[in-house]
Amino acid sequence: MAESWSFLDTFEHNFRPLVVIEFAKGTKEETIDWFTKRIVDKKANGGAQLLVKPLVTENGNENIYLVGASHLRLLLGAETVGLVKECNDNSMRTFTYSSRKTFKDFADDNHNFLTMAEGQYIIKHELENLRAKDEKMIPGYPQAKLYPGKSIVRRLLTSGVLVQIFPLHDREELKKLRHSWYGRVKVGYQPLDEIRCYFGETVALYFGFLEYFTFALIPMAVIGIPYYVFAWEDYDKYVMFATFNLLWSTVILEVWKRICSVMTYRWGTLLMKRQFEEPRPGFHGVLGINPVTGREEPVYSSIKRQIRIYLVSLPFVCLCLYFSLYVMMIYFDLEQWALDYHEENESNFSSLMLFVPSIIYAVVIEIMNRIYRYAAEFLTSWENHRLESSYQNHLVLKVLVFNFLNCFASLFYIAFVLFDMKLLRQSLATLLITSQILNQFAESLLPYWLQKRHKKRMKKRMCSLKTDADLSLVEQINLEKEMGTYFGTFDDYLELFLQFGYVSLFSCVYPLAAVFAVLNNITEIYSDALKMCRVYKRPFAEPTANIGVWQVIFYAVHVLHVTRSNCFIPLLLKFGNSVMLFSPCFKLYRTIFFFLLFFQHLLLAIKFIMAFVIPDKPRDIQIKLAKLEFESLEALKQQVRATDMYNSEK
Amino acid sequence: MAESWSFLDTFEHNFRPLVVIEFAKGTKEETIDWFTKRIVDKKANGGAQLLVKPLVTENGNENIYLVGASHLRLLLGAETVGLVKECNDNSMRTFTYSSRKTFKDFADDNHNFLTMAEGQYIIKHELENLRAKDEKMIPGYPQAKLYPGKSIVRRLLTSGVLVQIFPLHDREELKKLRHSWYGRVKVGYQPLDEIRCYFGETVALYFGFLEYFTFALIPMAVIGIPYYVFAWEDYDKYVMFATFNLLWSTVILEVWKRICSVMTYRWGTLLMKRQFEEPRPGFHGVLGINPVTGREEPVYSSIKRQIRIYLVSLPFVCLCLYFSLYVMMIYFDLEQWALDYHEENESNFSSLMLFVPSIIYAVVIEIMNRIYRYAAEFLTSWENHRLESSYQNHLVLKVLVFNFLNCFASLFYIAFVLFDMKLLRQSLATLLITSQILNQFAESLLPYWLQKRHKKRMKKRMCSLKTDADLSLVEQINLEKEMGTYFGTFDDYLELFLQFGYVSLFSCVYPLAAVFAVLNNITEIYSDALKMCRVYKRPFAEPTANIGVWQVIFYAVHVLHVTRSNCFIPLLLKFGNSVMLFSPCFKLYRTIFFFLLFFQHLLLAIKFIMAFVIPDKPRDIQIKLAKLEFESLEALKQQVRATDMYNSEK
Repeated sequence: MAESWSFLDTFEHNFRPLVVIEFAKGTKEETIDWFTKRIVDKKANGGAQLLVKPLVTENGNENIYLVGASHLRLLLGAETVGLVKECNDNSMRTFTYSSRKTFKDFADDNHNFLTMAEGQYIIKHELENLRAKDEKMIPGYPQAKLYPGKSIVRRLLTSGVLVQIFPLHDREELKKLRHSWYGRVKVGYQPLDEIRCYFGETVALYFGFLEYFTFALIPMAVIGIPYYVFAWEDYDKYVMFATFNLLWSTVILEVWKRICSVMTYRWGTLLMKRQFEEPRPGFHGVLGINPVTGREEPVYSSIKRQIRIYLVSLPFVCLCLYFSLYVMMIYFDLEQWALDYHEENESNFSSLMLFVPSIIYAVVIEIMNRIYRYAAEFLTSWENHRLESSYQNHLVLKVLVFNFLNCFASLFYIAFVLFDMKLLRQSLATLLITSQILNQFAESLLPYWLQKRHKKRMKKRMCSLKTDADLSLVEQINLEKEMGTYFGTFDDYLELFLQFGYVSLFSCVYPLAAVFAVLNNITEIYSDALKMCRVYKRPFAEPTANIGVWQVIFYAVHVLHVTRSNCFIPLLLKFGNSVMLFSPCFKLYRTIFFFLLFFQHLLLAIKFIMAFVIPDKPRDIQIKLAKLEFESLEALKQQVRATDMYNSEK
Repeated sequence: MAESWSFLDTFEHNFRPLVVIEFAKGTKEETIDWFTKRIVDKKANGGAQLLVKPLVTENGNENIYLVGASHLRLLLGAETVGLVKECNDNSMRTFTYSSRKTFKDFADDNHNFLTMAEGQYIIKHELENLRAKDEKMIPGYPQAKLYPGKSIVRRLLTSGVLVQIFPLHDREELKKLRHSWYGRVKVGYQPLDEIRCYFGETVALYFGFLEYFTFALIPMAVIGIPYYVFAWEDYDKYVMFATFNLLWSTVILEVWKRICSVMTYRWGTLLMKRQFEEPRPGFHGVLGINPVTGREEPVYSSIKRQIRIYLVSLPFVCLCLYFSLYVMMIYFDLEQWALDYHEENESNFSSLMLFVPSIIYAVVIEIMNRIYRYAAEFLTSWENHRLESSYQNHLVLKVLVFNFLNCFASLFYIAFVLFDMKLLRQSLATLLITSQILNQFAESLLPYWLQKRHKKRMKKRMCSLKTDADLSLVEQINLEKEMGTYFGTFDDYLELFLQFGYVSLFSCVYPLAAVFAVLNNITEIYSDALKMCRVYKRPFAEPTANIGVWQVIFYAVHVLHVTRSNCFIPLLLKFGNSVMLFSPCFKLYRTIFFFLLFFQHLLLAIKFIMAFVIPDKPRDIQIKLAKLEFESLEALKQQVRATDMYNSEK
């Protein structure tokens, strides 16, 4: 063990390993040599000009390489990726090497000017931008074709030569972060800025949203409690509750945009320019000319893709939806059976039995959601989208439609066809609570337990019983490379989305929904934090300026909420079941119905006006952005003016 | 007369008058001298480097000046305003003087490379950008204060020294345009490209939208006719009609975006960069520092503005809305009175009398709309918005809310409170037809007649009876300066908006609404064309890439349409009045209601999916835009790479 340490010590003094590259076992010498040469080669020769060292353990070279970069190289890389940093005058500006002195905390010897996560992001960007020049294939692997401009790393990954590339954890920093995040029992905000420094903007923004959303649900939960406790079921109390819910969820979504822009302005990502999007790694096709770039690259006919989408994926999704509805009908049969059983032999056991169908159904829903998720991923990747963003959009659409129907169809059916308020409440509670428990277990606790067991075994094998902090680099890398990969925030947002659906669409029949959501979210913060710090490999930081498509999706649920106006449910359940079955009340019913229609329109109007009145960005951020825009326009004008004068004097 | 012509002949050969400046009678010599000197002065000295000549008529100098520019100056100006033109390789690019040879039809002696409207736009831009340097006030007018950076023209206009600035008509071109636009009786498209060349993009886009909208209404009209003729009132036929309407209006709005982007790409405005927005002319305040630009300019506290908006404008608007509802109730009293009268003495006269209240109400609505418009303009300008765009938004919001309520409240009331299908149809027809007739008369025919009378008197006074083409420049200017000013497309879009409201919200109870809308729009095209060519001064061209806020507003009506789902109306009217008043049908009613709710959600889903599936821009335009973006990113990268290499070799 000590040998490997001493080996690492002989590295150049400024070499700090940031990113780990793992080749497949038995990768040809020739390939590794060619690839590492390209990594260290000068930019002018088409290299990445980074530093690379093999990791040598007691078993000899294990095909693992460490990548780092000199301080200067990272600064130049920061300019290439367009990082935005804070200046001495507190404004945020795009970093350029020539203006480096104007940035806050910049000093030639301050190697912490860029965070480790930023360094790793830069290295990832540089590695992915290593492009083939004249090579027709990867040396040693004739079947792995290359063409000018193809990203070498992506080809290596898809052909299985590279097993993985992942950024290293920083044990010291992680310990500090863990401590301030969930180490001590305290009431307070999460250390979002530290999370951002360590995990990047996408992850930090998810935790920011989770925290914000939890706080935002508290008023709903607080107001819901008396409704539950005192069983307030008068019509006017319900309308008040529903109205509050509706307006409050408008406010929540509008205010989030402001909070998000404040955070991302501080982090610099609000100002980052969008980069040109390269094809996603899995994209394949025959070699052709890209009409946009004019370069050679694989081309896949858009019509073929459309055919795959509309003739295969769409029918498949419809079939799944039908299947989900079929399962729902089985659930209602079970429910009926349990009810009959309870009526025949009334006992404690039989009244417990009443809950069993709901619980089974909740578990089945979760399982179906998970299976469908794999199918959706497979189908979407088979659709062969050129861009990651288009892949993501199609995946999100597929998964959301199914999950939404799967989770909410039974509730809608109970509310609007069966008119059974008691059953609706009971199903809602069971579904909500069961799915929350299942989720937290499957997502964090189970992997954590597996991970812990694995670590223990590893340590035993290494015959050492040190604490985490004492782990050597080799041990650390061996541990980390076996950890699971964090596939992004998709599943976490999906869970929040379903929760938002339960709370906003049905909370007026079951006011405790918001309470359970708040409780769940509080534990969710801790379990997700645990998952990030303990269970998964460190993810590469992903700069982002907002929560993207999820903002739109939460907004869509909200619009559905408005149009379906949950004032209807209690009214109809109440009147539909009892008073209204004799005729003189019909006129009353009609009047109330139209009052509601009017009320709904009024709410809609208030909603629109609120969205209009609450600006998306706080005033000071607006001014700062306007200032930057003004400066760039002025610079452009100066340039034009100079040309003007030059030309007119000629 | 001949003298003035000969006087003009002595102008430099390349002087072509483009824009007319009219000073107030009795403006001091000193002021005019100072201003004209600034206009002709070199850019380097803060001038506009344009050409300017006084217009001398038989009555001597009438304080009218003509502004032109050399060809070179216009080309440089085109670069300054960022005009986008077609290149030799058919791509659209921002014009720069240095790359002028790559543009289609460019030749040093081709003075038609820029259209006359573009030349006028450039001159307007240059004049408005004449800014005060050290002047503290306008020479000769100590009360008209200036500060560094203040636009001189705007101050001259607000202090009344300048009466108006307007672009000259081009008699030849106008005659050609008139001929191809509405001169011959033909079925076909409008010459949108020629309209754009003559009047600019904003006007052309309005006519494009009007034409598109008319074509889009034809299917609705065609389908509506059999419903009217055969009086199909079965429920299922109505649902089909309403469903078709809903989906069709989704398609209309989505497809318009595509058509609009194709047009504005061809015109170059889709690619034009947004300019930094200066304060609007009417904006006033105490001198302070603008936080964005850091320059001295009038500053007006945002809180004061908020107070004016929420404590004065908002209550005033609410009061007007209340008043409008009050008038509506009077209308219903009148309606009742007419009905009673008809029942008492049944005759032809009395059945005609039934229509009188609706006609009176329609006229009153029109009058109220027009009065309110003035009040809204006054209030919005009193709110003292800094930017023209914010002024426009607040004005549009005020006017729309009132007009919408004013026009539709009575119809909603009839539909949802009175449940009187016959009255609804009758009111709808009367309102729609009366308002269309009134509008066309007040907007085009009356001004045209006034204008014609004025022209005759002018000609008599000048004792000459020449045709239009023979008019001398002096006569032309004297005629044009007295013409009305076209205040932009606001009123025209407003009219279309109300029409869209009638058609989409109520066409399922009165299927002929679409037919009347189509007929109205066909005459509207001709009367608006007449108005543009004959009644008003030529407006300055305004480059624009889309119909802006109106796209959002049409979309909002559409969303309202979806949520209110007009399938409801016929159902409720039918069942509400007859069959449903005895009790066994109540369950049926409930079932149908929930079927409808489900159906509405299905429609909503289809709508969202359609909006997702139909891209906003056609594929070829997307590719062209992506190509431009890619090129600019590549250029940036090249630049960064050069710095990189330079720095790393150091």
